[in-house]
Amino acid sequence: MEKPSLPKGTRDFGPLQMSRRKFILNNIEKVFIKYGFQPLETPAMENLSVLTGKYGEEGDKLLFRILNSGDFLKKTSPSDYEQGTNAMLPLITEKGLRYDLTVPFARYVVMNRNDITFPFRRYQIQPVWRADRPQKGRYREFYQCDADVVGTDSLICEADIIMMINEVFKHLGITDYTIKMNHRALLSALAEKINAPDKAGDLFVAMDKLDKIGKEGVINELQQKGFSADAVKILEPVFNFKGSNKELLNFMENLFKGIEKGESGIADIRSILNYLNHYRSEAAYLNLDITLARGLSYYTGAIFETVVNNVKIGSVSGGGRYDDLTGVFGMPGVSGVGFSFGVDRLYDVMEELNLFPKEATRSVKALIVHFSENNKTYGLGVLKKLRDAQVSAEVYPDNAKLKKQLTYANKKDIPYVIIIGDNEQESGQLTLKNMGSGDEYNLSADEIVEKLH
Amino acid sequence: MEKPSLPKGTRDFGPLQMSRRKFILNNIEKVFIKYGFQPLETPAMENLSVLTGKYGEEGDKLLFRILNSGDFLKKTSPSDYEQGTNAMLPLITEKGLRYDLTVPFARYVVMNRNDITFPFRRYQIQPVWRADRPQKGRYREFYQCDADVVGTDSLICEADIIMMINEVFKHLGITDYTIKMNHRALLSALAEKINAPDKAGDLFVAMDKLDKIGKEGVINELQQKGFSADAVKILEPVFNFKGSNKELLNFMENLFKGIEKGESGIADIRSILNYLNHYRSEAAYLNLDITLARGLSYYTGAIFETVVNNVKIGSVSGGGRYDDLTGVFGMPGVSGVGFSFGVDRLYDVMEELNLFPKEATRSVKALIVHFSENNKTYGLGVLKKLRDAQVSAEVYPDNAKLKKQLTYANKKDIPYVIIIGDNEQESGQLTLKNMGSGDEYNLSADEIVEKLH
Repeated sequence: MEKPSLPKGTRDFGPLQMSRRKFILNNIEKVFIKYGFQPLETPAMENLSVLTGKYGEEGDKLLFRILNSGDFLKKTSPSDYEQGTNAMLPLITEKGLRYDLTVPFARYVVMNRNDITFPFRRYQIQPVWRADRPQKGRYREFYQCDADVVGTDSLICEADIIMMINEVFKHLGITDYTIKMNHRALLSALAEKINAPDKAGDLFVAMDKLDKIGKEGVINELQQKGFSADAVKILEPVFNFKGSNKELLNFMENLFKGIEKGESGIADIRSILNYLNHYRSEAAYLNLDITLARGLSYYTGAIFETVVNNVKIGSVSGGGRYDDLTGVFGMPGVSGVGFSFGVDRLYDVMEELNLFPKEATRSVKALIVHFSENNKTYGLGVLKKLRDAQVSAEVYPDNAKLKKQLTYANKKDIPYVIIIGDNEQESGQLTLKNMGSGDEYNLSADEIVEKLH
Repeated sequence: MEKPSLPKGTRDFGPLQMSRRKFILNNIEKVFIKYGFQPLETPAMENLSVLTGKYGEEGDKLLFRILNSGDFLKKTSPSDYEQGTNAMLPLITEKGLRYDLTVPFARYVVMNRNDITFPFRRYQIQPVWRADRPQKGRYREFYQCDADVVGTDSLICEADIIMMINEVFKHLGITDYTIKMNHRALLSALAEKINAPDKAGDLFVAMDKLDKIGKEGVINELQQKGFSADAVKILEPVFNFKGSNKELLNFMENLFKGIEKGESGIADIRSILNYLNHYRSEAAYLNLDITLARGLSYYTGAIFETVVNNVKIGSVSGGGRYDDLTGVFGMPGVSGVGFSFGVDRLYDVMEELNLFPKEATRSVKALIVHFSENNKTYGLGVLKKLRDAQVSAEVYPDNAKLKKQLTYANKKDIPYVIIIGDNEQESGQLTLKNMGSGDEYNLSADEIVEKLH
């Protein structure tokens, strides 16, 4: 018989991984809810008409497509078959797996435009699927964790995002990180400043690599792309700039004097900082960074990216403001701002920094162990008391040697066992053993409940 | 532009549905964890070699298959195409979507047999996909919610299942329901008793319809299937039996005297009842029902089914003991017992009985409304205080007419608004309005936090 296996690029999450993932996700969700975000879930399958064309040509190739049910060949002809995959594809598949959470969100907004109360704050935590070549840290099924506000231009939303990132990281115990912020208008202003507004895309793509290839590398790439020596001369001090957020704002104010986009971008950022100030937020983690570009994405306003310092894993959170979420589905004018957490990366960071609290990932607090069927049955009353007090507990279900029962407790990382023999049963004084320290206590069932709950 | 749509048989879950579903699922999960069950998640996609042949011929047809990525036709030839779907299918698809949670669980156990600590208690709450014809209450994507213990024959697990169902229903506020219990050995004994052990399958299938087609219907079907008049004569009092669990046990003891399977089935049930007794469980909801069959499934021991009385929706929970979870993957001897909740049906029941508590499905507790940018900005300090006290709150982000802001609060079902105008800002005495009663209070920010947290 063939041994069963997993499709490549996919994973099982066993009890330990699950409890750790839940620790991360529950903390994120709690913060989303506290900030007024409401949950949304969309189906795994979407019509291909919804998905295709939204992620570029490369993205279309990475969609997992569902074969039509039943006689899937019925719409095809031998000549379609001869023409090959491109001719066959639309005839045998109608649906695909969700590739991200943004397009399904946009579809939801368009389909429910009359029922949604705007501004609409939604969060969505669901897996997505991409037929990418699997490699370390890259999977074909992975969770995304998005929060967006649509239907408002208020920059309070940007301030809220920074607050939420800070709060989530505080709960997770991550203390050394940087939230980088920039503004698309400042990037456009920069392109204008160097007299290359038509080459803004090339500029952003190159600058986005600053972390990876360094200043020299970026300048090299810009020269190759035909940026002038004058342009590079203006850009160099931008790349070299070191200073506080305030100093950077002053530097930019000088740089972009008379450039409308630059001025409006600076005004937005000042406004966000002002809101944060009223929130009494420690801005310690926030770093303005005029070289942050976030690829060639659909953002139009402020953009964010969070990195954990001294952990080489890339950004663990990112987002920004956009002015057109749903135009592609025929509903223009829906602007908003959103961000997401990279759950797999956060997991790896937490593991590397040894931040998962043992308590939070332990599920069972006590195991009842016993010497006979009679002792075990007696233990059920104790078990009921524990559970009634909301203590997660179990009884070793089989009649087995004590050693086997204790091994089970150790393997399952259960911190306490309650030992019930005939003496204990008669006296009502049970033995509570702390599996970590080895300490033992003689206590009544009620005293044990008192101690463990 | 084409209006975007959902694939048939799939659904979006918007904020209200999500909060209600979460209310159900969180309560179930809390109980699972309290009883020592640990979470597992498996990928949406499984290799077809894992899925096919596990759900019968009909089930295989209902699998959603993923088209191979890239040049999916490369393993096919024109003659395959001419032969049609059955020849093409295995050449262009390797993966399918999860059809249930049991087969992936079995695969997981087999693949991780050396790392799992048995007895292994796992719960799993994930969507499954079936290419069924969609109809009212039947979807192509729906959640399953399973808990199983494998690697033990202890009947404490059965008692635990009954305890868990009771506890979940208590949390959900469902008070009028019946947990039906039977035992496969009793069904076999019944077939033996009527001298038709070879026709046990036909007997179970017919009896399973008792609720739907009534006693006459079942007897009719049995006669058609060739059961003798003598057999029917023995079965009639079984179908007619009315009495307590104790009376039914006595009745069966008489009926199955000398039939080994009958005696062992009765012993099991007595044992389960004894454990429940030690748990001090109200057995009020438990009904022995010798006509319960649960289809032709893989169960071999006790079986359960829960119905909500006076709600015509079928069973909302079911399960039973099996003696071979993983044999199909080459790992024999893994016995266990499991059950699941039907989340969609529970949702419908809760809705029909109006059981969703308003409080539990409300996410945001307070909205700050304001008359100017300045008032709004001042409100951020208040908002911070609320959130620091774990009160879910938001500020209306735009500068808008008060009426618009209050309409937003009403539509989003936010119970309190905090009104900040110039007077409030100057005096620090804000207006807290209860949106339900219309009552207004003049309070400081700290007093408001005190009242709402």
